[in-house]
This record gives sequence, structure tokens and C-alpha cells, in this order.
Amino acid sequence: MKKIVAVVGATGAVGVEMIRTLEKRKFPVKTLVPLASERSRGKKIKFRGKTVAVETLSEDDIPRVDIALFSAGAERSRRFAPLFAAKGAVVIDNSSAFRMDPEIPLVVPEVNPHAIARHKGIIANPNCSTIQMVQVLKPLHDVAKIKRIVVSTYQAVSGAGLEAMDELINQTKAVLAKRPIRCKVFPRQIAFNVLPHIDVFEPNGYTKEEMKMVNETHKIMEDYNIAVTATTVRVPVLRGHSESVNVEFERKITPDEAREILRKAPGVVVIDDPAKNKYPLAIDAVNDYRTFVGRIREDFSVAAGLNMWIVSDNLLKGAALNAVQIAERLP
Amino acid sequence: MKKIVAVVGATGAVGVEMIRTLEKRKFPVKTLVPLASERSRGKKIKFRGKTVAVETLSEDDIPRVDIALFSAGAERSRRFAPLFAAKGAVVIDNSSAFRMDPEIPLVVPEVNPHAIARHKGIIANPNCSTIQMVQVLKPLHDVAKIKRIVVSTYQAVSGAGLEAMDELINQTKAVLAKRPIRCKVFPRQIAFNVLPHIDVFEPNGYTKEEMKMVNETHKIMEDYNIAVTATTVRVPVLRGHSESVNVEFERKITPDEAREILRKAPGVVVIDDPAKNKYPLAIDAVNDYRTFVGRIREDFSVAAGLNMWIVSDNLLKGAALNAVQIAERLP
Repeated sequence: MKKIVAVVGATGAVGVEMIRTLEKRKFPVKTLVPLASERSRGKKIKFRGKTVAVETLSEDDIPRVDIALFSAGAERSRRFAPLFAAKGAVVIDNSSAFRMDPEIPLVVPEVNPHAIARHKGIIANPNCSTIQMVQVLKPLHDVAKIKRIVVSTYQAVSGAGLEAMDELINQTKAVLAKRPIRCKVFPRQIAFNVLPHIDVFEPNGYTKEEMKMVNETHKIMEDYNIAVTATTVRVPVLRGHSESVNVEFERKITPDEAREILRKAPGVVVIDDPAKNKYPLAIDAVNDYRTFVGRIREDFSVAAGLNMWIVSDNLLKGAALNAVQIAERLP
Repeated sequence: MKKIVAVVGATGAVGVEMIRTLEKRKFPVKTLVPLASERSRGKKIKFRGKTVAVETLSEDDIPRVDIALFSAGAERSRRFAPLFAAKGAVVIDNSSAFRMDPEIPLVVPEVNPHAIARHKGIIANPNCSTIQMVQVLKPLHDVAKIKRIVVSTYQAVSGAGLEAMDELINQTKAVLAKRPIRCKVFPRQIAFNVLPHIDVFEPNGYTKEEMKMVNETHKIMEDYNIAVTATTVRVPVLRGHSESVNVEFERKITPDEAREILRKAPGVVVIDDPAKNKYPLAIDAVNDYRTFVGRIREDFSVAAGLNMWIVSDNLLKGAALNAVQIAERLP
């Protein structure tokens, strides 16, 4: 059964990857409907060797599609996703708009695929930094039960979109040329610097990005007893999120056991041979569908703990790929 | 009492800062004796407006000095520091050579100044990433007793020396120009990437840098009951180490209490106004003697925990300044 698929936000960093992913994975697309805001009027995209004009998103003209992949920001999702769903589409939404809505499934297909079935027209795609973490942690949780997670992230600028990638490049050139830098996307200089600030701050002192890692982990893992705390940090990397993940378990699990479990985990690759300088790296993860884990070692500071280093392409498994994988599991 | 001061490794990233710091802090230097390896023969340095020739370090010609600041690598320290001490010098050694020797004090002047007195000719200067962390944590430990520390670092390339800074700059230019990159100092690309690898790997899967943070914290804080685990990561930043530090305490301490304590801590500055995008940043810490802490917030995943973000200039408080501060406390 071929499907009419809309991509809302088709010209953005994630939208472009959604379209590429649909094509690369041979998703049964009958017609592709790329949509974007007024700003992208007149733009064209390539799909299966053909040029397709990008249409302008408008409340007066919601197309009737089977699946709508949204990546156009939370505000547009809140406005348009229900309209697409009302016209019969299943919306898979990459924004934070619906993620914590108890009526809406939040899905990582390797972790909680069963949640897809209870959708009522909208399925939420989790935050990039959460997806890669839970994908690795779920199989370990099943075996040794996770008590607590302390995560610090090293997140690429592409998580903030194409403009953010330009900003890193332009600032880098400016610093090298000793010219003044310009900040538009990021509040402070990102070139040759790290920013402990992603998304906006909440009254409790955490950023929204940090609270996403806490709350989304609970919802996707379907276990609200896991204690989670997060510090999310932007680093001058174009693409590929890295994470330093400290995990305390209920029962002891050795690094060897963990590696054996993770070698069998779908979509996960263990790269863990420090003696040969082999560990996951952001630059190696770019354009790869898989999530990489390494530096797995015992945390001697607790009775049963592990440290690990998890890396994935934030635009793929962290966004576009995960959305397409959800679409692949729709009836 | 003016002193004859040798700087061994005078042309390196830390050595240069040691000489600048002696001058800026008006250390009572009678004569400065800059020493370096054969490679630096013929080089000259500036001190108090005068040009001083760099002398070549040689076992046959150990100068008689009052204080010798060493930053020339662990191997040279092991070979030369005892020779300087035998000639009457107090050696303050920035390498890892003597740090864990129970006979040798390991000192952060704000934390354990009393340890200086028991030296027998050599005092060890701790690892950069440890200094800034314990400087902030000690005053909190005194009040609420630390049970456990989980730290992930974001360390600047200058920790690996001047060549490493050149490598980051050169690789960055190469990536921007789409030319192939060269790796000499770092095992893999550092430009637009992060490396979960600093110093060499140990059999337990940790790097030496990570184990330094564990072992040196115990020795400097003089409390072997504090559980510590660390993940140390190199980021494409030239100067200034950032750290995501998660701390579990024995008794509850609020972020406000912690800020109040830290505002009084010597050498520590609290920058913690997220609503105004104010938090410590590596680029702001460069050339500053102080250690900055912010993003202080409750860790809801334990009964009594805090997360914080600690930043300092790795070449100053993390190396040269700390060494000079030790020298300032010698009789």
C-alpha cells in the first residue's frame, strides 16, 4: 500500500533528512508533499530523481495525506498537526509540542513500539538527545534495572537548525581571522567554546532540553522510578551528539555483560577498544543510521554502576530516521 | 627575601604562563632562570621588560636555585626534580610524576595549604581538571559532606600544549577548506569533534586523566570516603576547561545555600543568572585567575544533590597560577 506523505518543514535541517531517509529506505511513497513556511516559497527539493516544488503551509489548504512528518517547530505543530490529523493523516511530530501529552504516544521503535498502536492521529518523536540514550539503556534496564542516570551531553549545533550550522562556521572563520563574531542563533559565542545552555531555562534552573531528557526518558522507558538528572551542553560540532552517561543499576552488570547485551541491541553498535583508540566519535556517526556506544567501564563509586559514551547522528536517529521508522511501523 | 627562581619547561604552554604569572603577581624574584630542553636552545624570553636567554636543561649543570617551577613532562620531572631538590631548591612540579607519592604534598592552596609544610624538597601541583573542581567543592564539603561526585569534563586543547593548540587551528582551517586534516598530537580529529580520550588508557577502561580526577581529589580533599567517577573529554576549545559536576551530599544543601558559601570561597566567582544567559564560559575565563561556577541547581534524582558547571583557565589556576600560589606560601 503506497502512501501520500507530507513533510512539514521540508527545507529545514531535519526536513531535508526526512525526505532523504524516505528515499534511501524505499518508503512506499505514492506522492511526496513537501511543505514549508512562506519563507521557502518557490524552493524546490529533489526526491527519487525528480524535482518537487515546496508548497506553502496554510490553514486554508490542508492537504489530505496518509502520513505527515512534522519538523517545523512546536508552535506550528500545535497549530497544524491537529488539522492534518482531522483530515485523516497520521502525524509524526518531531517537535516538543505533544511529547508529554499522556494521550499521545512518544516512541522510539526499538524501545516502546507497542505505544504506536494507541495513537489517535498524532505520534510524538522524542528529543534527539533522549532517543540515542534510551535506545542504548533500554536493553540494559531489562536485564539489570536502572536506578539512576546522570547524563552530560556534548550536542552538535545542527540540533538548532541550518542557521546554527552557518553560525558556527561563520564564527569560526571570524575567530581565525581575528574579526568580531556575530551571535544570532546562540546567546553567546559557540566557536571554540562550549555553552551549558540548550533551549530556554525553567524556574528550577534546568533548561527545557535537560527536563526533556528527564521526562521523556520516563515516558519512553515506561518506568517513572528511574531517577534521571541531566546537563545539556552545546559544543562546536556540526553534526552528531555525544553523551557521557553514568548509570546506577539495581543489580551488578559487568562491562563485558553490557557489551554482549548491546551487541544484540537493534540499531546499536558497540565500538569499545580503547587500546586501539576505538570509541564512538561524532564525526564517524554523521550520515549513519546507527547509535554507537563505547567507553563502557565499571563505575567504582557505586555498588552497581557503569559509565558509557553514546554517540549518534542527531539529525537521523535523533530526528528524521526515528520518525520514518515510526512511519514504517504504521499499518 | 628575594629568591632565585628556575622555570623548567620555560617555552611550553604552562612555562610561559608561569613566567607571566611570576611577573604579574610581583613574586620576589631575584634572578629568573628559564630552562628548557635542547629543542629550545637559543630562544629568549621576556621578564620584567628584560630579555633572558633560555638555558638548556642538563644533568651536569643543575643550577642552585631557591624555587624551581617544573612543567616539562613527567619523565623530565622524575629525572631532574630530585637533582634540583638535592641542591637546595623547593621544586613545585606540575607533572603527574610525584602527585600520588604519599611522601609528597599535592596542594591546592585554597583547599589544603597546611600540606605544604611537610614537603621534603618537592611539592606536586595537581592536574588542571582536578584543581578547579576541588577548589569549588571543598567549601561545600565542609558544610554538607560530599558522598559522591560524577564529573564529565569539556577540556581545552591547551592542556596538551602549544602544539595541540596549533593542531586544532590547522585542522579547523583544513575542515573549512575541505582539505584533509593531519593528526599528530591527538589520536583523531579534534576540529568540529569531541574526543572521549585524554592521556592514555588504563586496564580498567579509564584514562589516566580520569583516574587523576578520582585519586587526586581524595588526596587533596584528604577524604578517601568521597566516591568519585569521571569521564574526561577533549573539546575543540583553545583555552579554558569546563566541567559538568554532579554532587551527592550527606545533608541537603539548597542552590541558594551553595551560592552563598561559594561567594565567600577564595578565588571562586559565582556567575549564575540563567534568566540573563549568565553562566561560566571557557572564553570568558581565559587569562583570568579565578574559577567560575554557575548553573547550580538541585539534583532531584537523589535526596541531597546539586549539579553545577565549573570553568577555569586550565593554564592558570589549572597549572601556572596554582604553582606560583604554592611558591607564595613558602617561607
